[in-house]
Formats: sequence, C-alpha cells, structure tokens
Amino acid sequence: MDFFHGLSAFPPTPTDAEGQVDVAALSRLLDRIHAAGADSIGLLGSTGGYAYLSRGERRRAVEAAVDSVGGRTPVIVGIGALRTDSVQALARDAAKAGADGLLLAPMSYTPLTDEEVYQHFRAIAETTDLPLCIYNNPGTTKFTFSDGLIARLAQLENIVAIKMPLPADSDFGGELARLRPQNPNGFSIGYSGDWGAAGALLAGCDAWYSVIAGLLPAPALKLTRAAQAGDADEARRIDDAFQPLWTLFKAFGSFRVMYTVGSVLDLYRAEPPRPILPLSPQDHGRVEEALQGLIDGLSG
Amino acid sequence: MDFFHGLSAFPPTPTDAEGQVDVAALSRLLDRIHAAGADSIGLLGSTGGYAYLSRGERRRAVEAAVDSVGGRTPVIVGIGALRTDSVQALARDAAKAGADGLLLAPMSYTPLTDEEVYQHFRAIAETTDLPLCIYNNPGTTKFTFSDGLIARLAQLENIVAIKMPLPADSDFGGELARLRPQNPNGFSIGYSGDWGAAGALLAGCDAWYSVIAGLLPAPALKLTRAAQAGDADEARRIDDAFQPLWTLFKAFGSFRVMYTVGSVLDLYRAEPPRPILPLSPQDHGRVEEALQGLIDGLSG
Repeated sequence: MDFFHGLSAFPPTPTDAEGQVDVAALSRLLDRIHAAGADSIGLLGSTGGYAYLSRGERRRAVEAAVDSVGGRTPVIVGIGALRTDSVQALARDAAKAGADGLLLAPMSYTPLTDEEVYQHFRAIAETTDLPLCIYNNPGTTKFTFSDGLIARLAQLENIVAIKMPLPADSDFGGELARLRPQNPNGFSIGYSGDWGAAGALLAGCDAWYSVIAGLLPAPALKLTRAAQAGDADEARRIDDAFQPLWTLFKAFGSFRVMYTVGSVLDLYRAEPPRPILPLSPQDHGRVEEALQGLIDGLSG
Repeated sequence: MDFFHGLSAFPPTPTDAEGQVDVAALSRLLDRIHAAGADSIGLLGSTGGYAYLSRGERRRAVEAAVDSVGGRTPVIVGIGALRTDSVQALARDAAKAGADGLLLAPMSYTPLTDEEVYQHFRAIAETTDLPLCIYNNPGTTKFTFSDGLIARLAQLENIVAIKMPLPADSDFGGELARLRPQNPNGFSIGYSGDWGAAGALLAGCDAWYSVIAGLLPAPALKLTRAAQAGDADEARRIDDAFQPLWTLFKAFGSFRVMYTVGSVLDLYRAEPPRPILPLSPQDHGRVEEALQGLIDGLSG
C-alpha cells in the first residue's frame, strides 16, 4: 500500500452541465499523471467533485480510470455520501471496477457525533477488503476528527491512512509527533492544502494529497521528491514558484480555480457543477499570470 | 400565502432502513397536524430528513401528503439538494404533485459564495410559480445569509418568506426591526429553533417553523395562538412545560430526539437514516420523562 505515500494527485472530473462524466477527457488527465510518475491518483476527491455526481457517473469514472491507468498508477477512490448504505454501495462499485484503495469523508447534513462517524467508518470497513484512508476535511464535511477518534478508527484492520487538513498553527512537526505514538506503526499520515505541502513533507509526513498535481503533476512531483530527499532549499524554491497559484486557491477555493487552470492549459473544457460558479474573466487572467509565473519560476 | 404565517409543523418522514418512505405512517402524522389546526405543514424539512432521501422517495412523500391533507392544510415542501439542476427537478416534482409552497436551503459541500447562492435561488425561482421560502439554516448548510443577500433575494417575485435560525443574542425584536425595512412589505420572517419560538412569536415574527409540532401539533398550536394574541404569560407557561424537551433537543439534536418521541407516543416505528444513530435506551427514558412532564405541565 505504498500508494498512501508520496504524491497523490487529485484530478478534477470533467463533466457536462448535467453531471455526465467526459471519460475521454478524464483519461487524458490520468495519463498525464501516470506519465509524470505520481505515486497514486486520488479519483473523485473533493477536487473531483464526487459530492455532485450520481452513483452511476461515479462508477463510470472509476471504470475509465482503471481502464486507462489501472495496474500502472494506483487509483484511490473517494466514496463519501450522506447515507451509510450509499457509501457501502459506492465501496462495492469501486472494488468491482478495480480500485486499489478508498478515501472516505464523513459528509454530513445533520452534524454527526463521534460515535456516528465511528460506526459509519466501521460499517464501510466491514463492507470491503480495500485499504481505506480517512478523509479529514472539516471545511466541506463540518466534522472535526479528535485524536481519540482517529486512534480508535486506526485500530480497524483496513483503515490504514488519514488525509489531514493543515494545522492552524502550521506546526506539522508537533502534530506528527503527537499523532504518531497514538496510532499503529505504519499508519500513514498525509496532508491536503497545497500551500502547506512543502512544510508538511519536510516535517516528515507520509503523503501529499495534492489538488494541483491533478493538472500539473510534474512540478508537484519535483517538490515532493525534493522534500522527501530533505532538500529544503529546492522544495522551498518550487513552493515559491507556486505561491501566486496558492494565493488564488486560498482566495477562490481550489475547486473553482482548477477549472480555470484546466482551461488555460487547454487540458479540458468544463464548468463546475452549479451552484458553483466559474471564475470571472478578470480572475481567469489572474490564473494565467500565476501559471506563467510558475513556469518562469521553475525554469529560473 | 397565509401558510408562511403562524404555525408550520415539520413532521419526520418515517422510512425503512433503505430509505423507502412509509406513506401510511406519514399520512397518519399529517392527519394529526391537520386535525390540530396547524397553519401549514413543512414536509421534507431537515426534520423530515430530506437530505437522506432519493428523488423518487421525496416525490412519493409529496404525493402522499397531498393525497391525505391537500386542499385542507397547505403543504410546503423542502427541495434542497447539492446541484442546482437537482433542485429544479425537485421543484417541478413538488409542483406537479400539488405542493402549495417550497422551502429551499442552500445545501453545500464546497462552501458557497453569496453570488452562487443568489444565482442558485434565482434559477429555482425561475423554474416554478410556487411561492418560495428561504431556508436559512447554517447548522446544516454551513452557509450564513447576510442581510444584503436576503434583501436581494426578497426582490425576486416568488421569494416571499425566510425561515431564520435563532439570533445568538435572542434579540428577536432587534433583528426584526433591522430586517423589516430592508425587505418588501409582506415578506414573511419566521424562526426555527423550538426553544426560541415563544420569544420570537411574542416579538412579532410571522411564523414558527416548528419541529415538535410535527408530532405534538396541539400544544405547539396553543403556544402559537397565545403568543399571537399577545398573552405572554400563557405562552411562557406552555413554553416552560416544553423546557425538558428543549433541553434534550439542544443536547442530542431535535432530528434524533424526534424519532424517540414518535416511538414513545406510539405514532410510528422508524430509525433515523444511518449514519445518524437513535438515542440510547437510557436517553429514551429521558424523553419519556420530558413528555410526561409536558403533559403534567399543560394540565396544571
């Protein structure tokens, strides 16, 4: 299960206005990620818009992913949904289609208790043999995992990893030192929030669950490999080149910005699912500038 | 559109473990609400678990409601969903089934901007001729309406009402005095959060969107009528009798507690949709005590 280590790239899922997946466009994105050498693909993550797709379209996306990169780059599939039985069905669909691992966020409408989240994850873990990563993303789920709940879930046999949000104080070293002893040896602790990736990797986290790597896998991989090798100067140099893009991610939300990145790079044409709106033409220009700055910064 | 005034009763939607609606049990609940004389029914609200039901089951629930109380007690239908096109489909389904009004919460996964919520509501308002109530419920949607956004939405022809959460400082009079001049004459401002209802109604709000009235319409209506008549002593006396139940609503969430109330009163047998868990046997006992206290308090 090396795929919960290193760089996991989270592509957007190109769809039409009705939410039907453009599997050809998706496969092209996945081929790029494979070609760059990312350690895994995070299909149907928040960036992949899983919450806005039907069960049938999610199955089509997994099948297309396994068809295009299966057996070459591991495919981790987001299976979050509001109902436990829906998540169980999505887990079975993903396994049947050939997914390598699963990623589960406790999506909520009614705010959930710790015990409800525990029982929810346990029910899913009992449904599947695939290794499962806890998707800790309070910004979208409204649920915050306590250390105690993480430790309790990590006791379940196939819950082997967690994808953490950036700590408020950016103290990755402190958080890792606190979490490591509470969880089994080999339990993978990774981070999302691209602007914190360099710091998290340099502090020794196991994985970067990366939004930008979904469309720009090569520079994200360069940053990852530099940090994994302990080359802080090089990792910081690449991170600096990304800064204008991180600024836009923070201002508009990476989910919206990624659609514009895909369009600027001419990788695919799609709009986010309404009610999410695309960036304005003016902000589109800011994305172009940030991408040009990235190219210049990396070649410098 | 008098149904956005007075007492709107929000029943749970009895379902089986797979999320199939028990239309016979639902109809019995609606008959009780009609018999008590509530001003409207809030079908498929948060209490009705709309977020956990498929489009087909939501359509079945609306059809059953119109069959049982249509033309006698107005039926307002919750149409929230994550995608704008899904909400449009739900609005059309509800209109076709004979609903009298609609209630729309800006459900979210990716946190929404003001402009996204405005365009979402506008798209729905243009889909239907039915009067629409804004469902302002930050606890479940993660979206907080600004005064400016409310005023902008209230300009749209068929957006005629808002269901507000309780103000943090309980200053209903202050909030109403602030909101009234910003919105058209006749724009209805009501509240949810049962423990604040007496205060809200006595301060002159237009409607109580009531969870408990879904299962106990008679005492909720007594409270409403007393407050509407300006009889503060009587409204407070009834509110006091409800206090033990309000305490449990606040401790466990009214969505969970209502399933136990339904069971204690022998109105229906159903469990909440997993991952939501039913109350423990011990807490079941606390609900029984609170209901006994309510009966004693009202007869005293």
